[in-house]
Formats: sequence, structure tokens, C-alpha cells
Amino acid sequence: MLALVYDGQAKLCRDYPLPKPARSEALVAVRLAGICRTDLEIVKGYMHFRGVMGHEFVGKVVKGPRQWTDKRVVAEINCVCGQCDMCRSGLSNHCRNRTVLGIDGRDGVFAEYVSVPVRNLHEVPEKLSDLEAVFVEPLAAAFQVLRQVEIGPSASVVVLGDGRLGQLIVRVLKARKARPLMVGKHPQKLQAAEKQGIQTTLTKDFVPRKGVDVVVDATGSPEGFQLALQTVRPKGTIVLKSTFAGRADINPTPLVIDEITLVGSRCGPFSEALRALAAKSEAADKVDISALVSRRFALSDALAALQAADDPDNLKVVLDVAQ
Amino acid sequence: MLALVYDGQAKLCRDYPLPKPARSEALVAVRLAGICRTDLEIVKGYMHFRGVMGHEFVGKVVKGPRQWTDKRVVAEINCVCGQCDMCRSGLSNHCRNRTVLGIDGRDGVFAEYVSVPVRNLHEVPEKLSDLEAVFVEPLAAAFQVLRQVEIGPSASVVVLGDGRLGQLIVRVLKARKARPLMVGKHPQKLQAAEKQGIQTTLTKDFVPRKGVDVVVDATGSPEGFQLALQTVRPKGTIVLKSTFAGRADINPTPLVIDEITLVGSRCGPFSEALRALAAKSEAADKVDISALVSRRFALSDALAALQAADDPDNLKVVLDVAQ
Repeated sequence: MLALVYDGQAKLCRDYPLPKPARSEALVAVRLAGICRTDLEIVKGYMHFRGVMGHEFVGKVVKGPRQWTDKRVVAEINCVCGQCDMCRSGLSNHCRNRTVLGIDGRDGVFAEYVSVPVRNLHEVPEKLSDLEAVFVEPLAAAFQVLRQVEIGPSASVVVLGDGRLGQLIVRVLKARKARPLMVGKHPQKLQAAEKQGIQTTLTKDFVPRKGVDVVVDATGSPEGFQLALQTVRPKGTIVLKSTFAGRADINPTPLVIDEITLVGSRCGPFSEALRALAAKSEAADKVDISALVSRRFALSDALAALQAADDPDNLKVVLDVAQ
Repeated sequence: MLALVYDGQAKLCRDYPLPKPARSEALVAVRLAGICRTDLEIVKGYMHFRGVMGHEFVGKVVKGPRQWTDKRVVAEINCVCGQCDMCRSGLSNHCRNRTVLGIDGRDGVFAEYVSVPVRNLHEVPEKLSDLEAVFVEPLAAAFQVLRQVEIGPSASVVVLGDGRLGQLIVRVLKARKARPLMVGKHPQKLQAAEKQGIQTTLTKDFVPRKGVDVVVDATGSPEGFQLALQTVRPKGTIVLKSTFAGRADINPTPLVIDEITLVGSRCGPFSEALRALAAKSEAADKVDISALVSRRFALSDALAALQAADDPDNLKVVLDVAQ
């Protein structure tokens, strides 16, 4: 099958072997896949990953348990053992023996087919388009912020970064009655958030004053953390959403002096993401991702798609796999 | 007066001017003062401090409001404005305009006299010795851990570091029904904790497994954080108690992947420390500091005392000021 493979460099492979699903797995034909910053970090060596790249997707089950056959699905990316202390204590996203689609020890979704554990599948409601469904995984990661940090309606919240993930986070915060300020470098991207009623400001115009209750760093850049430190108030919270292939070291002394809480945040609840996407457009908790897709590429153009995703002018870049 | 002054290097000064207390301040004759790692960091340039060093002390009020005169006191170290947003929101330890005794913009306590805001004073109960009272400030900092992080009796807790602060933290945790494991490099120091019923292990024998709910880094060394990361479980908490003059950078990516919460922790509640020291020796919440004083020096030997405090074989080093 056709697949985008990383083996020290990203390559399009026309004869990659078809996945062979295990008993507990389903074979899914990928319809649409999304490119995430993590994919770009993988190309820089993050996680020393080798194999089919990609983890955001929507597809159709072509082989698996009867009740799933032909269902349109999205799938959680952590494939877990169900046996270890983390799994047994309800923290299976942190399974000690996990593999992660397209990130760690398991082929991903930038391919015609992918094999995923049946337990990871979520059916996509009919009313959601493929384009909406491909946002479920990153949107769940945005919802995770609210699972980890209580943000009341009166809290001041700044989201640093106007990229893909920052866009989803401000939408989720707004859907949950918070009033985030988005700080970013790209006027066009800020406009996409403004159209959703989000307050925004350019990074160069933003004057941090160590006065903000919660700062979410979704810049995907090492400088983001420095700005977060200058923005958060003493005893406030910084949520870290960015991972890097290289080191992006931070000096912990200011965290101690100002008694900052730093919260690392990764994958989140698919169910909440599906619900927010499926909500009626006038509903308060609706998350609208319509303005977030910048470009679509065929899977055969996946290398060009990766480049486009690395262009700061672009928001989401998606791969049309089933055309 | 006699004072230990830092002006780019630590010097004993025999004719340092007597403090002139402002209207809202009291003049306190220092009786006993304690040396803390922060003092040692100040000698390395931390906070760019200049002036009389020291912030842990017990003394007697010699000038001030009548109700305080002749009282034996300890004093909180953050001298605050009472007006700024932090003060008004109950976070006066983080006052925007604060000075800090012997640390930031204000003369400290390694001197015959010190001037402190009356609002910072706490009377020392008669039953406490001077030697116990000099532990109130660092013990309050140890209690702060429990104010910031909920640690139930079933939680697994590891305290990294067997030095002064680590010793106080394990005692506070035990007084509050937690069962910490202390990990340190010095058999003698670990024994001091063992005598209080604390479980201990040598760093070289400790095998971190990413399985501990809460890890407190009180090593005062950059390596402490790396060990904390290897020790804490996914979704667990690391409490940072160490500040450094230099940079001791940390890589944030593992924090994101394992969704760790990092909590910076500084000064704490004097009232709880006074209560714990004053509790009857058989009380469950008693904190016993008797084994923690390694050496006592006269103020005139303060330079030798600083050296002794930097010797890893010593626990607390105190200065007898009023002899």
C-alpha cells in the first residue's frame, strides 16, 4: 500500500506491506489524516520513531468484529496493555507498555490502511464530516487542559501560540465559558480565532505582567515557556502542551520563587471532542473548526504536505487518503 | 554593630550601622540565627543581594510598639506593601513590592540587630527553646509543601535530599500521617531521620521506577530534578524546593509526555511551624528538630560558620549572636 514512512528521513513508499491486524484489532481504511506538530518533530528525530507516520485520522473499518465493520471511526492513539499498574489505576494513556500510533513503536495513519486495537475505536456520528472527524484527536488534547486545570469563568487565561493546537484550545476554553486571550505572531491566524469571538493580540504588542491566572503554552517553540513565565502570576499555572525533538531547557528557579504550578498535558478525552464537534452550531459548547484547514493534499503528495504543515502561514494541513 | 555582610563577597563587618526601624517596624536584638542553603547561594551571587545576610532567626524586640517590647519573636521574611494585587488577593508572600530579609533589598539577621515590620512578628511560646525557634522559618517552608499538594496517607512520597530542608520535610510529612521515603547520600544524615521513624535509603541503592505519587526535590542540586523525573509516576507531582544562583536547566518534554505536575514551593505558614514545635513530645503532630543542629558558632566566627554550612557532613549550623 501507499504510505508515508520515516526511517531516518520521511519517504513515500508505494509497496509498504498491508497491516496484519491482531485478534483484538481492526483494520481501518484511512479516509482523511491530519498533520500535527508532533509529526514534524518526528522528522527531526523525536521519539526515535521508525515506521508509518501520522496519528490523526478518520477511516472506515474494513476488517474486525462484526459490530464495527463498515463503521466510520476515529481512534485513540495510545495502544495499551490493560495489565500494568497505570492501566489498572485508570491511567491507561500512560500504560507502561504502550505503543502509540505513528509516534512510538507502531505504524501510523499516513497510509491507505492502519491496524488499531478495537478498544481504541470511536464511531463517528453521521452528522460529522470527515473533515470535522479528523480534528477529534487534537481537539481531545485541547479538552485535556480543562480536565487537568480548573478554569473558572472569572479566571484570566492566556493561550500562547496561534497555531493548530492553540486554535483548538481557545475554542474549547470558550465553549466552556472561559475567556481566553490568544497571543500569536500571525495576523491571519489570529483572525481565524477572532471570527469565533476570541480576543487576540500580536506577540509583539503583548506586554506580559506576571498577572495571569492560567497560561497555556501552545507555541511549539522553546521561547514560549519564557513568555509564559513572564505572563503567569505568582501562584498561577502554566500548562505545557509542546514537546520537542531537541532539548528546550528551562530554568526552574523562577518556578520556585513565584510558586508556579507547571502542568504537562498530552492526550485527552475523545468523547468530549466528538460531542463538541457534533453540537448544534448555535449551542454554547459548539466547537467550530471550519476555518482551520489551510490545505489538502493527496497521500501521494504527502512530502509536500509535510512541508506545507511546517509553513507558519498554514493552519491544519490534511491528507486525502481515500480519493 | 557586628554583622555578616555580602557585598560581592561575604565579610564580617564590626561597625555596620544600627538599623533604623520605620514607624511600622520593630528593632529586634538577634539571639540565634540559622544558616540556610539560600545563604550559601547568595554568596554565589543569587538574587544579586547586597547587605546583611541571613533570614532565619529568633530574637527579642528592643524597640517597637509597647505590646511587642521585650517579647521573644520570630519573623516572616517577606516584607510586603499591603497594597498591590498580590497583597490584596491574599498572596502577600508574593507581594510585587516586597523586600526579603537577607535575600532581596533588605538587611538580614546575621547581625546584632535587625529591623522588621511589626506585622511580620510572631511571639515564641515560652516552652520553645531558642534552638527550636530558629527552625520556625525553614519548618514553615516544609509545611508549605502540604499546603500546596494534597498528600493522603496512602500516597507514596519520596523526599530527595537528606539535608536541612529534606529533614524538616520528612518530619512534617510524618507528622501529617504520610509515610515518606527519604533518599540521600549521607548515612549519618539518613540516620537522623531514621531515629524519627522515617524510612530512608542511600541514593546509590535507590532504583527509581517512575512509580511514586509525589516526589519532593530538596536536594539543592541540579541532579535532583533528573532523579525526581525518574522517580515520579505518570500524572504524579514533583515539588521543587531548590533555588540556584546559576542555571540548572530542565528539559520539559518528559513533563508533557508523562503529564507531570511540577509545583514550585517557597515560604510557608509560621503558625503551623510554631504549633508543631510546641506540641508535646508524644503528640502525633510533634516535629522534633533536636538532632538537626550540627554546629554552633559565635557571630564573630560567621565566615567559618558559612564554610561549615557548606560542608555536606553538617546539618544545621547556627550562629549564637547574643552570647
